[in-house]
Amino acid sequence: MAATINETIADKSTSGAVAGNADFLAAVTALQTLTKKDLEAVNHEILGRMESTVPMIPELAGHLINAGGKRLRPMLTLAAAKLFGYEGVDHVRLAAAVELIHGATLLHDDVVDQSALRRGASTANIIWGNKESVLVGDFIFARAFELMVEAKNLRVLKALSHASGVIAEGEVLQLTTQKNLSATFETYINVVEAKTAALFAAATEVGGLIAERAGHEEVAIRDFGLNFGIAYQLIDDALDYAGYQSTLGKTVGDDFREGKMTAPVVFAVARARPDELSFWRRTVSDGNIRDGDFENACTLMQRDDAIDDTLSCARDYAAKAMDALNTLPENKYSQALGALVETSTARAS
Amino acid sequence: MAATINETIADKSTSGAVAGNADFLAAVTALQTLTKKDLEAVNHEILGRMESTVPMIPELAGHLINAGGKRLRPMLTLAAAKLFGYEGVDHVRLAAAVELIHGATLLHDDVVDQSALRRGASTANIIWGNKESVLVGDFIFARAFELMVEAKNLRVLKALSHASGVIAEGEVLQLTTQKNLSATFETYINVVEAKTAALFAAATEVGGLIAERAGHEEVAIRDFGLNFGIAYQLIDDALDYAGYQSTLGKTVGDDFREGKMTAPVVFAVARARPDELSFWRRTVSDGNIRDGDFENACTLMQRDDAIDDTLSCARDYAAKAMDALNTLPENKYSQALGALVETSTARAS
Repeated sequence: MAATINETIADKSTSGAVAGNADFLAAVTALQTLTKKDLEAVNHEILGRMESTVPMIPELAGHLINAGGKRLRPMLTLAAAKLFGYEGVDHVRLAAAVELIHGATLLHDDVVDQSALRRGASTANIIWGNKESVLVGDFIFARAFELMVEAKNLRVLKALSHASGVIAEGEVLQLTTQKNLSATFETYINVVEAKTAALFAAATEVGGLIAERAGHEEVAIRDFGLNFGIAYQLIDDALDYAGYQSTLGKTVGDDFREGKMTAPVVFAVARARPDELSFWRRTVSDGNIRDGDFENACTLMQRDDAIDDTLSCARDYAAKAMDALNTLPENKYSQALGALVETSTARAS
Repeated sequence: MAATINETIADKSTSGAVAGNADFLAAVTALQTLTKKDLEAVNHEILGRMESTVPMIPELAGHLINAGGKRLRPMLTLAAAKLFGYEGVDHVRLAAAVELIHGATLLHDDVVDQSALRRGASTANIIWGNKESVLVGDFIFARAFELMVEAKNLRVLKALSHASGVIAEGEVLQLTTQKNLSATFETYINVVEAKTAALFAAATEVGGLIAERAGHEEVAIRDFGLNFGIAYQLIDDALDYAGYQSTLGKTVGDDFREGKMTAPVVFAVARARPDELSFWRRTVSDGNIRDGDFENACTLMQRDDAIDDTLSCARDYAAKAMDALNTLPENKYSQALGALVETSTARAS
């Protein structure tokens, strides 16, 4: 049923969406190829750090880490460092630390959201349990810090520890705005900037920091990550209403069922006709969701351009990311990062 | 009913226990007085770090932090630094970071254990919810790292980030041994060393590290904290079967209901008569607890010296802590730390 409606929604542009996603996946693959050796070292570092005398820790962490993520965040760190000609080894450590911070966040997120599916596989909280996910998340987070301390760079430590606090703050803000129909687009952007973009920003920033570049370049590479992160999350939130479950590898409609006040809902509620407000109140605020409600939500969003405008916002932030990138040295790394951002606004996975 | 049995158990030594606890509380007060000015700065630092534009964060964190803990761990850092004649300001930052790591752990612990009461007050997971406690715990943990980075000492960062990983590892180990009657005393000590003593050890160690003392002194102050931490947790675990609810400010019998394999249970099970094993299996393994079971568990522990032997182990570790302390400079700080350890084995709160 959901698939039918989604197909209807994407009707006019299905072939365009498929082609757009192929471009994005090609850009991801190109960046993976460019950073291949370092990325292998990152994976090795990550798995080594999950070793423990307590067998459940590497089992649960391994499930999360091997679940086929794109390694987007660590690639940002690797590529940012290389863009500036960095020749040391700390970019691998820091890329691994960034991915571990992300992993710890995912484990806790899935507990908080009671998610059952991530990247097409059962979540750790479903397989091992909530308690286990909370504690192994703490372990992974602590190991990320141990790893980044080894890079012995206090500015890097400041950037990543600050980002970790901002992420948690964003998650709490999201929780307190959940089910609240009066949440504004501004609040939503604050959540996105904190829970997602702060780590994208820190991931690129630390690449610049270890390369010891001039101040304006550090600012620019950080701005690049920050704006790309916002764009990326906006698209994610659009796809939760307009994506394909099989492509996304997660359950479409999760945000709707959890009453998350993401951009599509914020726009749809702001544009709803008076008699439609009771629908949003019952579903998003009260969580009383019946068969067909998700499809109706998608139809209303389609009618009121809520998805289109979310994607349009994403393109604006992607353009800001490109502006920042264009002030930096042009080489194969900046080109690969640019292709990633430019294709990301048409992604579907 | 529980109180009646506890009174019976403590019958012979009630007046001794009361006097013993008064000595411990006096030692805590003496250390608080000795570190008063620094401790006020620690409290100020902690509250400042909990500020956020998201109102729930300072509310929830404030509830936890103001709930009347003894501030034992930060006092260990303050006193250890002062014992070595440290004259800077980083001991305050690090003491605050240590207390924040402890606080984050408590929030997650209470979610994992589904606790309702801590220090005589409702827990945050009961008042705000589990999700909120997980995320605010992450926030507090991240802020602890931000704070310790500001001390700009890589050895300190290594010690505290490593301890954070060990704590989480200990919590997971405890979870995997829960309800498992074949868990050994050795495993139990591993849990205690990781989940409790690692932070005591790091708390004292960083006091030594910032004072830049000779290697053997760093080792000794760490050993002091480690062994005191083990002793402290052993006593806590004994009190969960032999303490008074009103004095402890937490629910006596929590460990029993959660099936935790603490020393009293490990000893009692090892010494149980064959026909008693079904009792431990039903209660601790299967969690099928009826009226009178906790009292029966206490009676069996009393008969088989399970509590006495737990306390005796605690005294052995306290003696090791004193041995380490006695190799260090003698002054009012080492004296106050010594009094704390020596009276702690007779504490009841």
